[in-house]
Amino acid sequence: MTLLPEINGERLLGRLDAFARIGATPAGGVNRQAFSVEDRSARRLLAELALERGFTVFQDGIANLFIRREGSDATLPPLLIGSHLDSQPTGGRFDGALGTLSAFEALESLEDAKAETRMPVEVVAWTNEEGSRFAPGVMGSMAFTGADTAAWKSIVGSDGASLATELEATIAALPEASLRPTGMPISGYIELHIEQGPSLEKERMPIGVVTAVQGTRWLEVSIEGTAGHAGTTGLAYRRDPMVAAIGAIHRLQTTIMPLDASARLTVGRIAAQPGSINAIPQSVSFTVDLRHPQPERLDAIEAEVREVCGAEAGGQHCSAMIRRLFDMPGAAFSADMVKIIEDAVNSLGLSHKQMISGAFHDALFIARVTPAAMIFVPCRDGLSHNEAEYVEPADAITGARVLLRAAIMAASRRAQRQ
Amino acid sequence: MTLLPEINGERLLGRLDAFARIGATPAGGVNRQAFSVEDRSARRLLAELALERGFTVFQDGIANLFIRREGSDATLPPLLIGSHLDSQPTGGRFDGALGTLSAFEALESLEDAKAETRMPVEVVAWTNEEGSRFAPGVMGSMAFTGADTAAWKSIVGSDGASLATELEATIAALPEASLRPTGMPISGYIELHIEQGPSLEKERMPIGVVTAVQGTRWLEVSIEGTAGHAGTTGLAYRRDPMVAAIGAIHRLQTTIMPLDASARLTVGRIAAQPGSINAIPQSVSFTVDLRHPQPERLDAIEAEVREVCGAEAGGQHCSAMIRRLFDMPGAAFSADMVKIIEDAVNSLGLSHKQMISGAFHDALFIARVTPAAMIFVPCRDGLSHNEAEYVEPADAITGARVLLRAAIMAASRRAQRQ
Repeated sequence: MTLLPEINGERLLGRLDAFARIGATPAGGVNRQAFSVEDRSARRLLAELALERGFTVFQDGIANLFIRREGSDATLPPLLIGSHLDSQPTGGRFDGALGTLSAFEALESLEDAKAETRMPVEVVAWTNEEGSRFAPGVMGSMAFTGADTAAWKSIVGSDGASLATELEATIAALPEASLRPTGMPISGYIELHIEQGPSLEKERMPIGVVTAVQGTRWLEVSIEGTAGHAGTTGLAYRRDPMVAAIGAIHRLQTTIMPLDASARLTVGRIAAQPGSINAIPQSVSFTVDLRHPQPERLDAIEAEVREVCGAEAGGQHCSAMIRRLFDMPGAAFSADMVKIIEDAVNSLGLSHKQMISGAFHDALFIARVTPAAMIFVPCRDGLSHNEAEYVEPADAITGARVLLRAAIMAASRRAQRQ
Repeated sequence: MTLLPEINGERLLGRLDAFARIGATPAGGVNRQAFSVEDRSARRLLAELALERGFTVFQDGIANLFIRREGSDATLPPLLIGSHLDSQPTGGRFDGALGTLSAFEALESLEDAKAETRMPVEVVAWTNEEGSRFAPGVMGSMAFTGADTAAWKSIVGSDGASLATELEATIAALPEASLRPTGMPISGYIELHIEQGPSLEKERMPIGVVTAVQGTRWLEVSIEGTAGHAGTTGLAYRRDPMVAAIGAIHRLQTTIMPLDASARLTVGRIAAQPGSINAIPQSVSFTVDLRHPQPERLDAIEAEVREVCGAEAGGQHCSAMIRRLFDMPGAAFSADMVKIIEDAVNSLGLSHKQMISGAFHDALFIARVTPAAMIFVPCRDGLSHNEAEYVEPADAITGARVLLRAAIMAASRRAQRQ
């Protein structure tokens, strides 16, 4: 019986602590925004750990960081495993870091066991996933998959810094990493991440195998009526945009999510103009965040939002204007890669559920160019983008074990040469 | 056949124009806020016109202005007719001025006709009805009916001025007017006012006979839930205060006004915290403006708002907090005075409808100490507190004719000595 390599849980937890000290906030979170001094320190620490183990370190033009361990067939493109090291300004210790450091732990465990994989395996830390200092987010994975980055040169950060300057300085701060052109072929991608939602914890499920990332659309609805005196205007004389807005939102809230378990509809912002206690508003505006893994359902739900808002506005003799603020298509992950992860989970005797990611991830973009999938682990109270973000040590280790096992299987499969 | 006195329509329209020039705004409205230089000029002009006609002029400690024409029985308290001369900062030409100048026109018409009334008739211009510069409004009628005014000394205006100083200067600016103590007995009060709502115009009704003023309550509802990620939080895991708020408002909007024609329910202000497009809100707050002429129904509706908000919050595992921001009891007007106005309308061959005032008026307070009622005339599009406020000249004259006829009847009746 051959013993498969196993990750070193103590080492992983120590690494998580070490990286959490880089940009640590008093409240126990991290502030390690993309291209900052803290981000560069984290990249440096990871690169140094990699070089100590004899791995090769690369970075590309957008500062994505790659750590390579060779496979037995040098002609095959690498399997990528990883996540990101940057954080929100009041972010948690695990968002991104867990996936990146677990991937590095997997690489070290392979090395410890002198295990041979067919394909090379590369740990990747994608650049600027969060987008909190320099929007947009998922910059590294977008650039890696061929996005046009020309306009990014002029991006100015929330602190007034120039992206071009900060990117150049970030790359220069890691001279040990050879530069390589973007767009290299890869043979697959697996990302471990915290769920950033409550379902795994509530269902006491250690592992979520992510089959798709939801598409997201943001709509802004403005309903225009006629302002009036709250006391003197009888029902028959009202053109009340608040009645129309409430009626529309109520219909949407009581149908869309209750009738479709994969749909998400959230009204996070609402306002009335002029906003006087004793006046029927002139207009009411609100936002609708829609998510669905199937593009055609997302289209259908958007059409329903438009129809319902128009009808409710019409019923109050008001008019409705609906504007798309944002549209991010979702992606279904590779069925093969999902199967590999499920096999890994099963081989470890763990339970899991298939799930859909409601948040964006770098994997959403990488899935466009290679078979990709994700592994989720529970986080306390579903909290993320929050300094109180927390993952049980046992859950972190379980996630890393699944990642390693899946990586071994994926890197040993007979993939198509690209 | 004795000819009853009739008002001089041309003179009334001329007076409306003359007073509209005091504080005229470029957009055709007036800015004649209480205790301002413009307010003092309007008071002075009215006092001068009164003295020219041989009437007596008084003012009281809060600067309410009275113009007296004697009756045949000097032992009777006077019948009061009038309204206010102050305006909103971007107010209209008719709000208050129409009632005050029509009352003065009625007094002049009695004088022109040498008509004798049993009771003295006094025109009154109440101080600071609007409350836009110095809150609260309806200050003059509140003080007249015995409100405790001690705390008003420290009131500071929206422009930083001291009410005490401005009041003193306003009284001093009219030395022709003898000071008299507040709280004098009166035998009745009739106020002509523009409707400030759309119903008379829409129903092509020249006169509204006002039988009551609605009571008003302002509530603030805050519903607290749990913030969450719009994408990752499934329906079962949401404690969404927006769903609770929308559900509650929807239930109230679809029941309170549709089931009770005298009720008014208006949601004029709503907000979600933190107000992120892609986050389930932590909390949602909104205001409810409730009006009803019957105090017990207002109590019942407030109880229903509390019950519905509590139930809808509970249904989403949220909590609701409800706070009263304002409570102004309504008043039913004197059936006798309403009857007198209706007799006056009928004697002029006019049509009318009984109605309830949705806005406050000085008459609301005066009705607490004497038989009172109001006459409404249409205003264009129901607009008021607006520089575009407009009353058709014919409608203004009709209102003044009804006021005069009703005043003659009321001042000739055998009222109880007070």
